[in-house]
Amino acid sequence: VQVAIAVYPDLTILDVIGPYQVLTRLPDVDVVVCAADQGRVTDDNGLVHLDVEYTFDDVPTPDVLLVGGGFGSRRLLEPHTPIVSWIRSADLTTTWTTSVCTGALLLGAAGVLDGRSATTHWNAAGHLARFGATYSTDRVVTDGKAITAAGVSAGIDMALMLAARLQGAATAQAIQLAVEYDPQPPFDTGSPLKAPAWLVEQVSAQMAAKESRFTAG
Amino acid sequence: VQVAIAVYPDLTILDVIGPYQVLTRLPDVDVVVCAADQGRVTDDNGLVHLDVEYTFDDVPTPDVLLVGGGFGSRRLLEPHTPIVSWIRSADLTTTWTTSVCTGALLLGAAGVLDGRSATTHWNAAGHLARFGATYSTDRVVTDGKAITAAGVSAGIDMALMLAARLQGAATAQAIQLAVEYDPQPPFDTGSPLKAPAWLVEQVSAQMAAKESRFTAG
Repeated sequence: VQVAIAVYPDLTILDVIGPYQVLTRLPDVDVVVCAADQGRVTDDNGLVHLDVEYTFDDVPTPDVLLVGGGFGSRRLLEPHTPIVSWIRSADLTTTWTTSVCTGALLLGAAGVLDGRSATTHWNAAGHLARFGATYSTDRVVTDGKAITAAGVSAGIDMALMLAARLQGAATAQAIQLAVEYDPQPPFDTGSPLKAPAWLVEQVSAQMAAKESRFTAG
Repeated sequence: VQVAIAVYPDLTILDVIGPYQVLTRLPDVDVVVCAADQGRVTDDNGLVHLDVEYTFDDVPTPDVLLVGGGFGSRRLLEPHTPIVSWIRSADLTTTWTTSVCTGALLLGAAGVLDGRSATTHWNAAGHLARFGATYSTDRVVTDGKAITAAGVSAGIDMALMLAARLQGAATAQAIQLAVEYDPQPPFDTGSPLKAPAWLVEQVSAQMAAKESRFTAG
């Protein structure tokens, strides 16, 4: 089984590293981190740099495709950007086509979510409709072979569920123990359904300001 | 406020990327990813390569020091390896000296945990005593200015608690919402206190086998 994790400039790095840490613990699974080009890919804080060894052309037919989100995704939403073309083509033969956060918009641009239920970062939910997808407030949404996770940290939950689908519950339970995923978040504000309205508005405004810096150029 | 996140060869990358994603959202905080040398640092799966721009010498006096775990830590536990020397020196002036997973062993080797309560990955708990530390089964342990988190994913919880200590609860709550940290783990096996004994034994054996590959050379 081959799992291809796609990255691109100005990604949100936890979106992919959460699932990466889970899926690399699956026995007999080949995980490949890939991008449009070999070389340096910097995250949307400009502070972490990945050195990527494989291109999309190196992994044309993965069994599992995973793409994360980040402000850089907004520049890639046309039908024929390298990542969107690769998703469209690879999806023809995947077992699971998956995303975390605004990675769902890239699946959408590739046509994968047309007519499906899906999720994304809560602050980007309004973008799903243009790709024919219906937003669900579930943290992880499975519709056919498309699995989409909510924002950033939701990729860990999604990857554990995916691990169970690929190799059974006992294997996924072992991975959850190995990464000691017994979360104890200090607050109960991790979802817009739980946080107070003023906090949702504040974070939404902060994210809009950050997004404008990425789309301005 | 400067936050220095230390990396080294054969680290477990989620240990540092979880806290990184939280702490980089703190306003007016300068996060620096650093290592003994500039250049490529590969994780303990051999699949993700970081390109590191700053050395420990570049950040001698961070306000917050954070070190993650990974099998590579085992090779660095002598008193005068670059990372241990840096931790010992930087700790003299930090506000918070923190670790995730077996990063605690590096704090221990630097003398930071002597006489303190601390945690680490559950499977490495037995190593803490040699550094004068007392293992706690809490997910995040604060003793003086030393904050240690349990295995891998516990760094996210720790970083949110640290964010609250640095800039108040409202800021930390906003970050928790921004990274949509409303965890819904699919199983209740994320802690050895919850998982069945056979699963704990199985994962412990898997980790021992993996560790032996790193310490054999």
